[in-house]
Amino acid sequence: MQFELTILGCNSALPTAYRYQTAQVLNVSERFFLIDCGEGTQIQLRRFKTSLQKINYVFISHMHGDHFIGLPGLISSMALLGRTRPLHIFGPRALKEYLDYHTKLFGGRMEFVIDFHLNNPSKKELIFEDKVVEVYSFPLYHGSIPTSGFLFREKRRLANLIKEKLQEYKIPVSQMHRIREGADFINDKGEVVPNEELTIPAPTPRSYAFCSDTSYDERLVPIVKEVDLLYHEATFSEKERELAAKRFHSTAKQAARIALKANVGKLLIGHYSARYPDTTILQEQAQEVFKNTLAVEDGTKINIPLKNREQWRQS
Amino acid sequence: MQFELTILGCNSALPTAYRYQTAQVLNVSERFFLIDCGEGTQIQLRRFKTSLQKINYVFISHMHGDHFIGLPGLISSMALLGRTRPLHIFGPRALKEYLDYHTKLFGGRMEFVIDFHLNNPSKKELIFEDKVVEVYSFPLYHGSIPTSGFLFREKRRLANLIKEKLQEYKIPVSQMHRIREGADFINDKGEVVPNEELTIPAPTPRSYAFCSDTSYDERLVPIVKEVDLLYHEATFSEKERELAAKRFHSTAKQAARIALKANVGKLLIGHYSARYPDTTILQEQAQEVFKNTLAVEDGTKINIPLKNREQWRQS
Repeated sequence: MQFELTILGCNSALPTAYRYQTAQVLNVSERFFLIDCGEGTQIQLRRFKTSLQKINYVFISHMHGDHFIGLPGLISSMALLGRTRPLHIFGPRALKEYLDYHTKLFGGRMEFVIDFHLNNPSKKELIFEDKVVEVYSFPLYHGSIPTSGFLFREKRRLANLIKEKLQEYKIPVSQMHRIREGADFINDKGEVVPNEELTIPAPTPRSYAFCSDTSYDERLVPIVKEVDLLYHEATFSEKERELAAKRFHSTAKQAARIALKANVGKLLIGHYSARYPDTTILQEQAQEVFKNTLAVEDGTKINIPLKNREQWRQS
Repeated sequence: MQFELTILGCNSALPTAYRYQTAQVLNVSERFFLIDCGEGTQIQLRRFKTSLQKINYVFISHMHGDHFIGLPGLISSMALLGRTRPLHIFGPRALKEYLDYHTKLFGGRMEFVIDFHLNNPSKKELIFEDKVVEVYSFPLYHGSIPTSGFLFREKRRLANLIKEKLQEYKIPVSQMHRIREGADFINDKGEVVPNEELTIPAPTPRSYAFCSDTSYDERLVPIVKEVDLLYHEATFSEKERELAAKRFHSTAKQAARIALKANVGKLLIGHYSARYPDTTILQEQAQEVFKNTLAVEDGTKINIPLKNREQWRQS
């Protein structure tokens, strides 16, 4: 029942020896979702102990090299390791051409297919779901480059039945699923037992939103509203606010403003310009606006607990 | 007057968290030659303190991804850092197409040209020289993939004149260069002063040969004869000798046999299969044949001294 984010890389275009380009892996109940894939992502996966072969879904935000040039190396290693399971990749059309070019270049040693899913960077849409999780892509605002953010949300679980009550009211098995879905119980005499008396509500579904790269844009607020965890790029400090706007990036404070307006649980900032070997200033500027902010580093792991979410959101 | 090799990556196709794919940088009197460029090379250059912008010459051995997929990232970082100096890249034709594809993909932000030099993997030839160093490419034997090794050799320096003798024999400035080149001195009376009496010979030029990837092949022996430093791939241990042959790679012992027959100074082995997290076995097997062998790691630096070469070669 995990919901854990691992930061594989959190620098912007220029990687340093200790901060790689953008890449993250989100583990939702043992489904491993790779978000962006900068250079060296396959190496960071090993360093931070996630098996390459567990990754079945890759989401690429946009066609700037620091967000996808790790893919050919990752794919070729998956092939060398004998992968047969399909790899699902979600991204813009240009990425499909890029992957086709490299698959041809690296020749026919691949025993798995790349199942490419074109996603539309111009509107919010559901791009993946299974029985436990939904993934939406939505527009980010990165100048002329079509760019998508991604929202991961657990599906609502059924309520848990209270054992004692089942016995007390002699509830037949046939009724149990309906009651877990929220129905009241009506016995033979026509007496109604309200659902609240029979069930403990399931914990609220957990959610994570990824917003990189983007300018400050309040159109993101309703989309990331109330998520437990928000990653919002913070390429620059306040001092560079004009440069940030010019480059279609955000400042740490702007990231925090989105977090505040959307009332998220926790804010992660990253995608740092290489001019900030020490990111304390970025974290401090963000915290002036939104206290529960963390400036991530490569290897940062954030685990969203299933229960006691409110305490966690304050922590 | 440096002649220093730094290993940036020494694993084969599958990188690990601590051993990257093939890449090395050779510093010959502040000329920085990059040899192969696996994934993450730009990151390793930073980790091991070589400025990207100092690299003006890149040599790519062959078109297996683990030897060149770091180039697009390296080039795009050079561009972001405002490079204007041309970058000279030596490699096979397919590499030119690969670079053209990526330059187009990453758009027009590059303010420097890539000067591509096609080298012929089927014969030994001089591919670069300036006043201090010559670089030759020569054939390696890697199955159907045309593959080149590279030989770096300092040019011979002029002998040094012995000051006292210049005065003793009143040697005019006009004669000095000829004498440094090896001529005897003939005075007005026609008396001959032999060159040995007037000069101290310059130290022997230093040399380094790179052989990866290749099967065991004794045709390499005359080409790397007597070099101070030889890097020869050792993908496998003796136990995997047949697999090595099948994959057109070498064992550590085979690398050592080439070193022994060529009477090189020091042997470096690398390009390890990921099955050897500990390479002691490979070093031991090589040392049974050629004692002065080192199994390199990422970050290994080897400095060839200008003087007292013989002691160094024994060390």
